[in-house]
Amino acid sequence: MESRRGNSMTEEEYSEVAATRRIQRLTSHISPAVATQPATTSVVQTETCAARTKKLEVNGQALSLYMRGKHMDIQEKVYEFFNSRPDLQTPIEISKDDHRELCMRQLYGLVREAGIRPFRYVAEDPAKYFAIMEAVGSVDMSLGIKMGVQYSIDMNLADFWVYHRRSNVQGLQTTAAFDPIKDEFVIDTPHDGAIKWWIGNAAVHGKFATVFARLILPTHDSKGVSDMGVHAFIVPIRDMKTHQTLPGVEIQDCGHKVGLNGVDNGALRFRSVRIPRDNLLNRFGDVSRDGKYTSSLPTINKRFGATLGELVGGRVGLAYASVGVLKISATIAIRYSLLRQQFGPPKQPEVSILDYQSQQHKLMPMLASTYAYHFATVYLVEKYSEMKKTHDEQLVADVHALSAGLKSYVTSYTAKSLSVCREACGGHGYAAVNRFGSLRNDHDIFQTFEGDNTVLLQQVAADLLKQYKEKFQGGTLTVTWSYLRESMNTYLAQPNPVTARWEGEDHLRDPNFQLDAFRYRTSRLLQSVALRLKKHTKTLGTFGAWNRCLNHVLTLAESHIESVILAKFIDAVQNCSEPSARAALKLVCDLYALDRIWKDIGTYRNVDYVAPNKAKAIHKLTEYLSFQVRNVAKDLVDAFELPDHVTRAPIAMQSDAYAQYTQVVGF
Amino acid sequence: MESRRGNSMTEEEYSEVAATRRIQRLTSHISPAVATQPATTSVVQTETCAARTKKLEVNGQALSLYMRGKHMDIQEKVYEFFNSRPDLQTPIEISKDDHRELCMRQLYGLVREAGIRPFRYVAEDPAKYFAIMEAVGSVDMSLGIKMGVQYSIDMNLADFWVYHRRSNVQGLQTTAAFDPIKDEFVIDTPHDGAIKWWIGNAAVHGKFATVFARLILPTHDSKGVSDMGVHAFIVPIRDMKTHQTLPGVEIQDCGHKVGLNGVDNGALRFRSVRIPRDNLLNRFGDVSRDGKYTSSLPTINKRFGATLGELVGGRVGLAYASVGVLKISATIAIRYSLLRQQFGPPKQPEVSILDYQSQQHKLMPMLASTYAYHFATVYLVEKYSEMKKTHDEQLVADVHALSAGLKSYVTSYTAKSLSVCREACGGHGYAAVNRFGSLRNDHDIFQTFEGDNTVLLQQVAADLLKQYKEKFQGGTLTVTWSYLRESMNTYLAQPNPVTARWEGEDHLRDPNFQLDAFRYRTSRLLQSVALRLKKHTKTLGTFGAWNRCLNHVLTLAESHIESVILAKFIDAVQNCSEPSARAALKLVCDLYALDRIWKDIGTYRNVDYVAPNKAKAIHKLTEYLSFQVRNVAKDLVDAFELPDHVTRAPIAMQSDAYAQYTQVVGF
Repeated sequence: MESRRGNSMTEEEYSEVAATRRIQRLTSHISPAVATQPATTSVVQTETCAARTKKLEVNGQALSLYMRGKHMDIQEKVYEFFNSRPDLQTPIEISKDDHRELCMRQLYGLVREAGIRPFRYVAEDPAKYFAIMEAVGSVDMSLGIKMGVQYSIDMNLADFWVYHRRSNVQGLQTTAAFDPIKDEFVIDTPHDGAIKWWIGNAAVHGKFATVFARLILPTHDSKGVSDMGVHAFIVPIRDMKTHQTLPGVEIQDCGHKVGLNGVDNGALRFRSVRIPRDNLLNRFGDVSRDGKYTSSLPTINKRFGATLGELVGGRVGLAYASVGVLKISATIAIRYSLLRQQFGPPKQPEVSILDYQSQQHKLMPMLASTYAYHFATVYLVEKYSEMKKTHDEQLVADVHALSAGLKSYVTSYTAKSLSVCREACGGHGYAAVNRFGSLRNDHDIFQTFEGDNTVLLQQVAADLLKQYKEKFQGGTLTVTWSYLRESMNTYLAQPNPVTARWEGEDHLRDPNFQLDAFRYRTSRLLQSVALRLKKHTKTLGTFGAWNRCLNHVLTLAESHIESVILAKFIDAVQNCSEPSARAALKLVCDLYALDRIWKDIGTYRNVDYVAPNKAKAIHKLTEYLSFQVRNVAKDLVDAFELPDHVTRAPIAMQSDAYAQYTQVVGF
Repeated sequence: MESRRGNSMTEEEYSEVAATRRIQRLTSHISPAVATQPATTSVVQTETCAARTKKLEVNGQALSLYMRGKHMDIQEKVYEFFNSRPDLQTPIEISKDDHRELCMRQLYGLVREAGIRPFRYVAEDPAKYFAIMEAVGSVDMSLGIKMGVQYSIDMNLADFWVYHRRSNVQGLQTTAAFDPIKDEFVIDTPHDGAIKWWIGNAAVHGKFATVFARLILPTHDSKGVSDMGVHAFIVPIRDMKTHQTLPGVEIQDCGHKVGLNGVDNGALRFRSVRIPRDNLLNRFGDVSRDGKYTSSLPTINKRFGATLGELVGGRVGLAYASVGVLKISATIAIRYSLLRQQFGPPKQPEVSILDYQSQQHKLMPMLASTYAYHFATVYLVEKYSEMKKTHDEQLVADVHALSAGLKSYVTSYTAKSLSVCREACGGHGYAAVNRFGSLRNDHDIFQTFEGDNTVLLQQVAADLLKQYKEKFQGGTLTVTWSYLRESMNTYLAQPNPVTARWEGEDHLRDPNFQLDAFRYRTSRLLQSVALRLKKHTKTLGTFGAWNRCLNHVLTLAESHIESVILAKFIDAVQNCSEPSARAALKLVCDLYALDRIWKDIGTYRNVDYVAPNKAKAIHKLTEYLSFQVRNVAKDLVDAFELPDHVTRAPIAMQSDAYAQYTQVVGF
């Protein structure tokens, strides 16, 4: 970030500040004592805004306690273990093969030396499991994914899910035929086209694979066999002692990827591989010794749905881990932007680059979004944990839609933000040591695996449309979109021309207005998509109509997810008991809400939900809130409690190391 | 791209298509003979839109000739050379050090073996030079940058420019003191804070550096010396024979970067390094044997401006090369999306994923933008070449602003598009061999070097505001924004409420409407920024006011650049003589224009330039044009003439190799 030149309006001669003076200032700037003094606010903007509000003094401890909750301890344990073991830290430059080996050693270290056993928590305390995954991911995202593949059946299945899905899951061709004589299943991949690729852990380290295959049972009718649909089986792929590939199993290495090269992805083909009958994962369907099939679920479709339903944990994990990546990235970019100084008014010290409106514009709505997604994914994990305990049907449906929506929405946002953070840090963002490159490359695929984001958003919209239809047939709505039940009729009326002109700050910062705006948009989109689909289905058929409305459908899904995120954020603000922490949260919540409304202002204007004067007021307030958030940005970032040895980027060091770094790189 | 499931509206059972049948279809799909038959258009959408238009048959040869012009031959020569030398192709996995060595060998190969001498063209035929750079960049972007640093004085200076600028260029502290006794300059870096980092080619291979330093001359007054301001000097840094670092020169390696690791960036520090007087680059100021200073330019500021003005070539090169990267990326993603098939209406063959509206939405406006930026940067190169010949002052100013604007606008767009392309290709986009990872990592820094994009946009806006001010004082406007002269008053009047409601396709596709919309927005933004700056300057001072309006300023700059791009695109359509090529260009030009208007529809609605019915019509037409462009997407991409051995990504292969690949990866 620099100022501009060569213009009559901008021809000030900026005062020169010697390097030593800069370092002194930097050092004072990063001293914790200074952080709470109003003096850290830039001269320029204090002049502008001091009259409107006094700087908020945030109780950092209360805020971080409220944010991080009960799983802080285990995360600290992960951080401390890797901090104490430099030999287990991933170097900047490492070959694919070395990275795979290191990643395996990291995992062994975590389990055997640090004594952290993630597998234990997968079922009994998922929130703790995801907290470990987040912490481990901050060490090396490959390790996070490797752990997921190794320890969670969900993740392992998920690798199949993505690629099965691609080849039309219900039509997948791998078979598991029961042999009643030997009491075994025989697994077969019928041809090259049915090979499953990109299976994590398969190329080098895996001993078992969880395989989706059509269960084939012998019958006494003319066909001789019966296809019971897709089931999951545990198939050994390598010898437990020699680690040799087992007979009939063919493994190919998927090679070098854009990121996550610590994970060894491979392709598997089976040629008459025999496994014991017990290796069928029999929760939704079982085969007896004499080849009789039993299931609590009546149809192939129901069983298939239930089997796939187990995959939801992978999406919950990715959404949660993606917020973790966003926290690291935003922390590095914001800490750097607070420390880095450049130019300033004539005869005055240089200002932090975070004092530039353009830098606030890049980073402050991002910080607000990070908080928003934090609370939304914490809520998702709670619901998921509850679901794992109760198996309540409505809750299953709810978690399914919510995990699909949050996974796609959050991972897309984080992916874009990683680029924004790199750019916001200029040339230093491009030094590999400052981590944006590897974070982006590793996180990138979050948008695709466990279901492509574009596909998942369609599932969200499809679910919403189904419920909309049921509503008109007198049915009920699941919890996540129950807001539509109450409000649909209200929202579909013409907007009130009086409130459309209200532009006061109190009104714009009222959660009722914000929620109303989000839900109004979702309701309108839901109704208009439903009508368009109905119309086009007559001429184009279901497939053609859906495709004709696809962009519209995706917009609906995003709008709905944003509504859910805001509602959870507003709850989180209200539930925070410490006043200064609550005030800080309220600030970022308002910024999140108004920034989103402004980003889609065209839609609001088109239906006159917002009049021109109000649109202008929203824009102005968004810029003002970005400035307000800038003033507590340090507190907000510190509440993530990411120590220097976790963020690791030299440009974001809070100790003297930063001053040393800036001196070396020639500021 | 997949369809959706689990919804009553979407419960078709898709027909199973065996792998062999798929490959047959794929093979027929990629046969050139098929490409011009209407049958390639998907069944679904033909039904929808066949009534409105018949498929355009594009004369591909005419289109590519019009696009690529006279520098095709030398680009082919580059492509062929590297195709014939597998030993010079960059492998997927390579260490930093090996990459640096390989990159040097690639450069030697290009110059010594292929006999291509880029340096010859830097001054005498810049268009040819940039064409070579584009071609070389498609082999390995590190090579493109290495070549630029090695062969172009502009680029070499540029490395200094970026980092000097960061430390306040006019205040840079390195000195070149003239020693009249020995007839030499003595170069000194006064302290660590003045070390220049990130200099391309410095860490390993460079023999010389072009150094910016303050020229210090001895005087007879009491001060004893006189500071003549910043000048450029050629300083040898390594011995020509032994390659040892020369005495007084200290070099540090900048290490591993996010991308471009074939380029060896380093830091330089000088301790009393002596160079002959002749090593002063004396175009704008010279020193005689007896220490007398002469210059055609009267002030330090003027000379400084002229010296920096030489750097514009680097920006022209980056804008041009960035379009080259965008072409490769869009080609890979679109060819893959045409070949890859997934799902479809019941009982019908699967459709290409480019038949999905969401995929069109991702890729077709991007293809249109690629064409838009192609013509804009070709125009920039023409103007730059003219400037290098005539040194016309108005042209210099014009090229300066245009290169700053296009460099920032185009590189930001390409950076985002690389991520979109990766996502559009799903899991296969994540395989390193398919290139999105390395293209993105290499291109990323284009947004930062040669001037950070946020800074360059401010320069554009500052220049625009300066001219706006002069206009009101009776001055003239330079060529690039001469449109404002004619239209400012018209545009600032209230929009016409009648035309604001016109929604016919002929009207929306009329270049006059499109240009008017772009220019209207720019004019409004220019006036409103000027007024706001004036108002705020009174209370906040120049610096504070500029910062207070910074987002507004950046929007103005982008809007202006978009206006220029559209105007050039419209010219390019009109100048194309072959009717089918012109029709194809008109299609993408309309998509470019309307997509941009739709993206900022809030602004247009807020001032009632566009009524709600027109906004809706624009949106609808944008989707329809995306579909139309999809039907000629193959022709449009083929016109870039990027053969398989240049794109290299297996997923985009046009030969049987693709069918083999799809078979192997298990479609």
